[in-house]
Amino acid sequence: MNVIVDLCVVPMGVGVSVSKYVAECQKVLQEAGLEHQLHAYGTNIAGDWDEVFAAIKRCHERVHALGAPRITTTIKVGTRTDREQSMQEKIDSVTDKKS
Amino acid sequence: MNVIVDLCVVPMGVGVSVSKYVAECQKVLQEAGLEHQLHAYGTNIAGDWDEVFAAIKRCHERVHALGAPRITTTIKVGTRTDREQSMQEKIDSVTDKKS
Amino acid sequence: MNVIVDLCVVPMGVGVSVSKYVAECQKVLQEAGLEHQLHAYGTNIAGDWDEVFAAIKRCHERVHALGAPRITTTIKVGTRTDREQSMQEKIDSVTDKKS
Amino acid sequence: MNVIVDLCVVPMGVGVSVSKYVAECQKVLQEAGLEHQLHAYGTNIAGDWDEVFAAIKRCHERVHALGAPRITTTIKVGTRTDREQSMQEKIDSVTDKKS
Repeated sequence: MNVIVDLCVVPMGVGVSVSKYVAECQKVLQEAGLEHQLHAYGTNIAGDWDEVFAAIKRCHERVHALGAPRITTTIKVGTRTDREQSMQEKIDSVTDKKS
Repeated sequence: MNVIVDLCVVPMGVGVSVSKYVAECQKVLQEAGLEHQLHAYGTNIAGDWDEVFAAIKRCHERVHALGAPRITTTIKVGTRTDREQSMQEKIDSVTDKKS
Repeated sequence: MNVIVDLCVVPMGVGVSVSKYVAECQKVLQEAGLEHQLHAYGTNIAGDWDEVFAAIKRCHERVHALGAPRITTTIKVGTRTDREQSMQEKIDSVTDKKS
Repeated sequence: MNVIVDLCVVPMGVGVSVSKYVAECQKVLQEAGLEHQLHAYGTNIAGDWDEVFAAIKRCHERVHALGAPRITTTIKVGTRTDREQSMQEKIDSVTDKKS
């Protein structure tokens, strides 16, 4: 089952600056070979359900290992059985309708 | 790794009434033997990371099997390494401070 | 326009224990006279759009005033034009289908 | 109070294809003169709290007016008092740490 996910990992108890931890999650996604795109409030990821969620679990493990005692993460997960749709196609289907 | 999760599964393409699909997810959580509590905008779940996310995957599979061609789900996931905390303890720690 | 909202306010830069700040938000909702119900990963709120979002803004103002330099909040908002539905009715419509 | 918001509006009861409704929300944001950036699972918005949330309310009004009887929306909201930070600066602070 393919998913498109929006992931936002928030380490708590490490001060206001959390970019170090978010950068670590980007590395995890890269190592996993998953298609992903950082935006200003999270990261979009596309791939197989099991691979994507294994990577998200590794993000938690690595952010804890970096010193964050608590993490609260927000995930949006989309699946569909009617047809395949890439992240770019989702964006295009909206921008096409604006013109 | 223990997690506390807030899960909100939204089937799309099946009309406005989605309670049938949410009820199916409750059954999945019950079958998995996971501690869970339905509220007005989702379900809180506590348990082991792998068991909780395996159940969430089954929710998607079962909701698709019931006829929903598309699903968008929102998940909040909390983990902490500093101490154990149950769902009830999270609630109590807030209500204690109100009085 | 009536809304049902799920609100989860996460203060950052104040350590791992955030219940003091969540309790402050409960007070804000109470002062606003809004129907609300705390759960293990947020608070459900029902009411008029403008009143609910004015209260959420006050939550941010008060949590900053208590000393949190940064806040990340997750909100789910539901509106419908087909019929009225209370928070309890949402829960009942699911639990009715489980039996 | 300045906010950075991630907005994901999901119309229900209108079938699987929802890009028409998302495009309408893009128009609302454009008309409001708000800085915004569409991604594969939502839209990032930056601006004044009141202006951003007034636009989100108009999104709900316009999506209902287009025929959607029910909407469920997910919003992430970030505010900070320690310093100003643009959407691009949030992205750069992460990508700088990856290299």
